[in-house]
Amino acid sequence: TLTWTELDQRAVDTVRVLAADAVEKVGNGHPGTAMSLAPAAYVLFQKLLRHDPSDPEWTGRDRFVLSPGHTSLTLYIQLFLSGYGLELDDLKALRTWGSLTPGHPEYRHTKGVEITTGPLGQGLATAVGFAYGQRRQRGMFDPEAAAGTSPFDHTIWVIASDGDLQEGVTSEASSLAGHQELGNLVVIYDENHISIEDDTDVAFTEDVLKRYEAYGWHTQRVDWTKTGKYVEDVAELYSALVAAKAETSKPSIVSLRTIIGYPAPKKQNTGKIHGSALGKDEVAALKEVLGFDPEKHFEVDPEVLEHARGVVQRGAQAHAAWQEGFDAWQASHAEEAAVLERIQARTLPAGWDASLPSFEAGKDLSTRAASGKVLTAIGPVLPELWGGSADLAESNNTTIEGAASFIPESRQTASWKGNPYGRVLHFGIREHAAAAIVNGIVMHSSTRAFSGTFLIFSDYQKPAVRLGALMGVPAIYVWSHDSIGLGEDGPTHQPVEQLASLRTIPGLDVVRPGDANEVAVAWRTILENTQNPAGIVLTRQNIPVYERGDGPATGTTFGSAEGVARGGYVLAEASTDTPDVILIGTGSEVQLAVEARETLEAQGISARVVSMPCLEWFNAQDAAYRNSVLPRTVRARVSVEAGVSQSWQGIVGDAGRSVSLEHFGASADYKTLYREFGITADAVVQAAKDSI
Amino acid sequence: TLTWTELDQRAVDTVRVLAADAVEKVGNGHPGTAMSLAPAAYVLFQKLLRHDPSDPEWTGRDRFVLSPGHTSLTLYIQLFLSGYGLELDDLKALRTWGSLTPGHPEYRHTKGVEITTGPLGQGLATAVGFAYGQRRQRGMFDPEAAAGTSPFDHTIWVIASDGDLQEGVTSEASSLAGHQELGNLVVIYDENHISIEDDTDVAFTEDVLKRYEAYGWHTQRVDWTKTGKYVEDVAELYSALVAAKAETSKPSIVSLRTIIGYPAPKKQNTGKIHGSALGKDEVAALKEVLGFDPEKHFEVDPEVLEHARGVVQRGAQAHAAWQEGFDAWQASHAEEAAVLERIQARTLPAGWDASLPSFEAGKDLSTRAASGKVLTAIGPVLPELWGGSADLAESNNTTIEGAASFIPESRQTASWKGNPYGRVLHFGIREHAAAAIVNGIVMHSSTRAFSGTFLIFSDYQKPAVRLGALMGVPAIYVWSHDSIGLGEDGPTHQPVEQLASLRTIPGLDVVRPGDANEVAVAWRTILENTQNPAGIVLTRQNIPVYERGDGPATGTTFGSAEGVARGGYVLAEASTDTPDVILIGTGSEVQLAVEARETLEAQGISARVVSMPCLEWFNAQDAAYRNSVLPRTVRARVSVEAGVSQSWQGIVGDAGRSVSLEHFGASADYKTLYREFGITADAVVQAAKDSI
Repeated sequence: TLTWTELDQRAVDTVRVLAADAVEKVGNGHPGTAMSLAPAAYVLFQKLLRHDPSDPEWTGRDRFVLSPGHTSLTLYIQLFLSGYGLELDDLKALRTWGSLTPGHPEYRHTKGVEITTGPLGQGLATAVGFAYGQRRQRGMFDPEAAAGTSPFDHTIWVIASDGDLQEGVTSEASSLAGHQELGNLVVIYDENHISIEDDTDVAFTEDVLKRYEAYGWHTQRVDWTKTGKYVEDVAELYSALVAAKAETSKPSIVSLRTIIGYPAPKKQNTGKIHGSALGKDEVAALKEVLGFDPEKHFEVDPEVLEHARGVVQRGAQAHAAWQEGFDAWQASHAEEAAVLERIQARTLPAGWDASLPSFEAGKDLSTRAASGKVLTAIGPVLPELWGGSADLAESNNTTIEGAASFIPESRQTASWKGNPYGRVLHFGIREHAAAAIVNGIVMHSSTRAFSGTFLIFSDYQKPAVRLGALMGVPAIYVWSHDSIGLGEDGPTHQPVEQLASLRTIPGLDVVRPGDANEVAVAWRTILENTQNPAGIVLTRQNIPVYERGDGPATGTTFGSAEGVARGGYVLAEASTDTPDVILIGTGSEVQLAVEARETLEAQGISARVVSMPCLEWFNAQDAAYRNSVLPRTVRARVSVEAGVSQSWQGIVGDAGRSVSLEHFGASADYKTLYREFGITADAVVQAAKDSI
Repeated sequence: TLTWTELDQRAVDTVRVLAADAVEKVGNGHPGTAMSLAPAAYVLFQKLLRHDPSDPEWTGRDRFVLSPGHTSLTLYIQLFLSGYGLELDDLKALRTWGSLTPGHPEYRHTKGVEITTGPLGQGLATAVGFAYGQRRQRGMFDPEAAAGTSPFDHTIWVIASDGDLQEGVTSEASSLAGHQELGNLVVIYDENHISIEDDTDVAFTEDVLKRYEAYGWHTQRVDWTKTGKYVEDVAELYSALVAAKAETSKPSIVSLRTIIGYPAPKKQNTGKIHGSALGKDEVAALKEVLGFDPEKHFEVDPEVLEHARGVVQRGAQAHAAWQEGFDAWQASHAEEAAVLERIQARTLPAGWDASLPSFEAGKDLSTRAASGKVLTAIGPVLPELWGGSADLAESNNTTIEGAASFIPESRQTASWKGNPYGRVLHFGIREHAAAAIVNGIVMHSSTRAFSGTFLIFSDYQKPAVRLGALMGVPAIYVWSHDSIGLGEDGPTHQPVEQLASLRTIPGLDVVRPGDANEVAVAWRTILENTQNPAGIVLTRQNIPVYERGDGPATGTTFGSAEGVARGGYVLAEASTDTPDVILIGTGSEVQLAVEARETLEAQGISARVVSMPCLEWFNAQDAAYRNSVLPRTVRARVSVEAGVSQSWQGIVGDAGRSVSLEHFGASADYKTLYREFGITADAVVQAAKDSI
């Protein structure tokens, strides 16, 4: 049962006053939920969460995800009270340049912040990925331990808002969480019934808990308004959360009915208090209600702070107790422990890349097929590599062959055998959740997870992909069927603008290899990078595998695929020292550049072919290298890519040309489409002549 | 009760054989669902749908939406049987260049196709918009009629698949459909339990109907496997659909348990039959099972066809009966009838634009505020204009002031009064559904609907926005908070790559006006365009309203905002005939160009300022106009926009410079952000000098 003293209550009230003061000081922000969620957040951080403020990276810690990131103060003030290093001055600097307390919590920016949140829905969906990560981690390192006894056992706690529960990505991820029986996931749904347009009845009248029951979740309701008065029955909430944590056969959601902005006398329970400062008078009135001095700001009773900071010592004790178990595990699991250490350091095993396949020239192969072979080949040496598809496993070639699926045993099917610790993921037709979950897996467990879908459906994933890029999470998105080359499915399925669009995202590497051997180097380079996400973009159709030399291209020999690691490289050299024209291609269109080069050379025009699988990697090279591939002096340049040319305009320049597709596709076999839309070697030849 | 003859059964079996033959002929496609859905589709088109194949645009028709577009044959074969003009040769041309039977159904391409579908979830979500459109249309034109008696009463029928039901956008839209009590919407959920990864148990085990109950839907289950054998009890399905249609107080979903690919002897009930040709032997076996000649292809018994084509006459009769009611309505509602005629012709009332406000120079105003004033000013003269926000009404300024909300009366709140025929939309925090629903409204009713959210959340809407562009639907997306100018909410909320990204979508107009008067012309131009969607991109922060002349810019007078209609125009002219440099800005950054021009001119450098609110409109102008704004001879050019520069590289060219933001934003007041990130007039001045 819960121990709850007057000091605890005073601490909760202090949270409310600090929230109001902090927003008042900067003049904008979101005070309402920070005030009404104060008891819930405090009881979590003080009484339920297993955490150690002195070591925010502790492997054994519970995770806390604040899905409604706008109420960042809910988190910041608990981090302050718990002793994570945030101090009053940081709260005073809320939402100002360079502070540790930005408008929304930012991953890797503030100690104790596990994830960047703000775009609604992403927090809860990514937390489902955390829960996947925890289960996989346990399965990799300590599968035999009895439930609750492993150093890898812990809970993912989430606060979600009315807004989070409306977003589709949450629905997708929550359905998967139920399907996966994620007993390590506990969500507090802050049902305050107010969003920016005020009373949520105007747009949100579904029965949320019934929906979660339908997903297979354990549901509980804690209604602090049930007596007709508003009574913050913390003990009732605590009991519900204890029961939720104890339910390990399914995820849990506790609907907590709160009154936003309580107990601000005038503005509680209004849309206004959601996202605006209370105003001087209302802040003063709030303080009076709570017995604080209305003349004082950021007032924290030292006794309250000392009491709250008891977390530091309790956390250290919990950590020490856990450490004993961990040390014992380590002693008895030397091999697993070495792998864990390596993975947490985000390094790869020495010599791992010897397992990468190389592909014989001469036989055409789609890059998606090559990618599948790479995954299956490196799977055994990289246990941290796992993933799967949003219901397109065979199309995306995302299955590590021979590996078990990650599913409850009761959910195995004739086609897919697995267990809760398996390695092949099945997202169903939920692309958005797939990307968010993969982000969460990678953040939680430092494993390298990937999700697959068609490139066109990267559109569905964009908000999660952007968040991965913003956080610098090395998640991997596999995107196959990367152009009109997918053929008959037509314009709804043919990406046209997606490559250019994805390239606009800061921090995302968009990698479109030009043949099977480029695929292998692309995967190697992506896996060697631990700083940001990458998308690997693959053809459906077969394309040539080039005969290559071992080094740079010469007049007679194609360059090694090693050049992929630098983003762009000379694949086929011109016959003269200075080419008359440079042909730049990606993916399946590299072959058009290669063919055009032959025609041009036969006509006495010297042409270099540059394969440019990743503009981001190329732009990260030094100027000398870039100039060696694309000499400034050669202004005749042609890009060829079966999509809109926007991202090539800066590369080809004023004299250059782009062979591109500036409109939607059509339904026909792909050869017809390339011909009819003028994405051909002849078009490249013509463009080269125009450019010269 | 259902009349079901042997000919009906024979027709259904013919559908299956045609589906198998059509896929077999082209060698690829999706036969399985077209086979097993044959009875459901046939009973819809023959027995339930009110339609007239001779007039696919009939105002009084029911609508049919095939959400799983991959089973396009389900629709094409019914269009063939019903007599819409599709013939056997069209079925034989499935998925080939130029045919009327592309891989996925395409709006405005094939008669009888109401919507382009394929990206899962969009069909059902857009159908919810159709249902909104129907209710609003009735409210505009015939609100007093008793239920079921108005010529505007009809039903929206949807077939949805396991895949559709997993997508988040469907969840969002279905929650709204329940909330809105859309009694005119009937969904058949084809629960065949197979998707590409085979048995859906691997990823989809939630209780779908319970979820729909939670949304407030009427649910029914028709299980053709319930006897242990597979029995296609068409009468049971028919009764369920009749009951669903009769339930007019809420939307209905009928879960229909089918076996995909039935009755193909070997491949039914497998993932393989979903998306691959059956193979010659299995097609032959199928024909034998159904009593068809395995040697014949595309065999249609003339008697069957004649029977099925009875729809033409029945449709004409239904149309004639409806016409009587419509004529009577027209006679008694002359004014409404004129409005209907005008709206269906997609024209605007003469002189409507006199209602557009003009804004006085000198007082700063955010473009979102200006947009709100425009909407409120033109609302009274454009009854077809309606819309609202995804829970950001006050932030997006999307409320036509004084208008009622579009909600059931029981869902009114203290802040929002309304009725089922209201005009202000509340999407809740469901950006994706908002865009899909607006698409559906515009497609259904020819009204002009808009949805609002922050520009950053256009990411959530991308798949629907793309589909709007692909279909050429003149939906309007209002996107406010369009840059780091939103300030303290920080990088999760600050669009950086969104403008460049949205500009990659073929057929989408991205319009970012540079002051309040540009906003008015932007709205006018958007509304005058009926061919494709537009996004209007608006600032949160106040920006200057320029003092302008009535015509083109001169050395001393700024150009009229009329130039907006051409996408880009000279806002401020240089002091020399040929400018030394051209400064090109959009939105809030136009003021930086204006300020930089003054500095440059003071330093003896002549500088022209071009305001370029819409690249798509500008690129549609003739070369002479474009050259008059951006003379080829002036290669010194600077673009200034607080986002990634990708879309400006082709405009500024080799000699040009872009003042841009190539990384994510931060949390601080916006003035600090502009300064710290170097988006300043000084930076424009420096870039101009570099460019010259």
